[in-house]
Amino acid sequence: MAELNPPELASKITDGQGYTRAAGFRVIHVEPGKAELSLAKKDELLQFGGHFHGGVIAAIVDQAAGIAVTSMLPKGRIGVTVELKVNFLSPADGETLIAHAEALQVGGTIGVAKIEVFTKDAKSERRCAFGTATMRAVDLPKQFA
Amino acid sequence: MAELNPPELASKITDGQGYTRAAGFRVIHVEPGKAELSLAKKDELLQFGGHFHGGVIAAIVDQAAGIAVTSMLPKGRIGVTVELKVNFLSPADGETLIAHAEALQVGGTIGVAKIEVFTKDAKSERRCAFGTATMRAVDLPKQFA
Amino acid sequence: MAELNPPELASKITDGQGYTRAAGFRVIHVEPGKAELSLAKKDELLQFGGHFHGGVIAAIVDQAAGIAVTSMLPKGRIGVTVELKVNFLSPADGETLIAHAEALQVGGTIGVAKIEVFTKDAKSERRCAFGTATMRAVDLPKQFA
Amino acid sequence: MAELNPPELASKITDGQGYTRAAGFRVIHVEPGKAELSLAKKDELLQFGGHFHGGVIAAIVDQAAGIAVTSMLPKGRIGVTVELKVNFLSPADGETLIAHAEALQVGGTIGVAKIEVFTKDAKSERRCAFGTATMRAVDLPKQFA
Repeated sequence: MAELNPPELASKITDGQGYTRAAGFRVIHVEPGKAELSLAKKDELLQFGGHFHGGVIAAIVDQAAGIAVTSMLPKGRIGVTVELKVNFLSPADGETLIAHAEALQVGGTIGVAKIEVFTKDAKSERRCAFGTATMRAVDLPKQFA
Repeated sequence: MAELNPPELASKITDGQGYTRAAGFRVIHVEPGKAELSLAKKDELLQFGGHFHGGVIAAIVDQAAGIAVTSMLPKGRIGVTVELKVNFLSPADGETLIAHAEALQVGGTIGVAKIEVFTKDAKSERRCAFGTATMRAVDLPKQFA
Repeated sequence: MAELNPPELASKITDGQGYTRAAGFRVIHVEPGKAELSLAKKDELLQFGGHFHGGVIAAIVDQAAGIAVTSMLPKGRIGVTVELKVNFLSPADGETLIAHAEALQVGGTIGVAKIEVFTKDAKSERRCAFGTATMRAVDLPKQFA
Repeated sequence: MAELNPPELASKITDGQGYTRAAGFRVIHVEPGKAELSLAKKDELLQFGGHFHGGVIAAIVDQAAGIAVTSMLPKGRIGVTVELKVNFLSPADGETLIAHAEALQVGGTIGVAKIEVFTKDAKSERRCAFGTATMRAVDLPKQFA
């Protein structure tokens, strides 16, 4: 069986550049089929009511799903998003977002994950969103391989 | 029949603060049931391959859908997102994202919109995503009323 | 607090008439926030390859989600479907479909559920689909109240 | 360029057996990238309120999307459903369902379609649902090739 992608790939992809570095996404944990990410509140991530913007919640859903699926792909392959769906369950009004993604199925070309997102502050933690995402495996760009 | 929200509300909600101001979302056009938004490329909006991040595409889908639905709500009400779904159709590798949202149905409590997203550069324009979103009408926070 | 709908409502709604009676949907278990349904294979439920048709899988997702959400609504209210999403994970080639729905959040007007669907035969059971659905509470028609 | 599937394949797959024959699905029109299907009301297709069941609406969405995508695949390949999403916009209380599917993008392995569903009677026609679906291309079973 092919060697899987190493867990370190998740951080490389997330902390190294672009949107996820600018926003401050952190990879908390990765194991085959699972990923946990967090994101701390700051003004540039909020909507008009002062909660995390729906697009930011969708982004952590997307990133966590991609990492969970990619962790089950052979070394050198990465999951890119075919589609994602998010249900917003309660206001994301905490200090941090936490996303837990779990792969439901990973095949040769397609992988599917479910993702729960929690909003957390000093006093409490509450599920604020639930999502699913479909990924397609492609070759990892050279600079990350 | 109740007076609808004014088109200016869309810019207030979008340019005034938070994620959409920081990212650089621009409201191009609003009429009852329709909204067009744009977003220029910059490093803080990209994924590992140098294209717009899926979460950024989901955010413009979300914002455009919210504006299209809110434009058909009575003055003082605003649509917040119940759920959104995005299909990614091709790499978002252009210089600008353009989103066109159109309300499919707006009732007393719920509104639904479809959204097309295009990626555009000097030479070409191509549809890169298609989404749908469901909104729920709530009272507009005082500072925007 | 208002009295919730009785578990018997689920069977009334499912076995009594229409599509779900004709197809043979059975309510296996209902408790507040949860529902389990089953459906036995027959020719009129299959697609060209001899597996359960995607629309039949979507129907058991829909029915199970509606029952799970309705079980948490006050007596006299029922959930009707705002939207549903299904990911098909593997061929539904068993003798029976089993759906487990669980409410993620139920508020005054909207409820959301996640649904797992398994395909089962004498030898094995395998998850074949995963869905989410959003319901809206309306008054139960008189004949079911 | 490869020869595409012939339009007749749609009827073979739909009228010939299983769920879609039993329910009475009719293929009205197919051209590359587009499909129109209809379904007449009968008791075995309805929910507790006497409207078309959500699962039946999902089924016509699924079938129409599959045909629209398959019509753009090379002869001998067929689209099977990866995921589908349906928004229910108004009660499906007419005498007939009509579904119009249009492919948004069809590549080597994946195709995406959008689908509008109308409910129609002698006096009127109204959009009652809107959906999207993702298909994956597989080899057509021998008996249909």
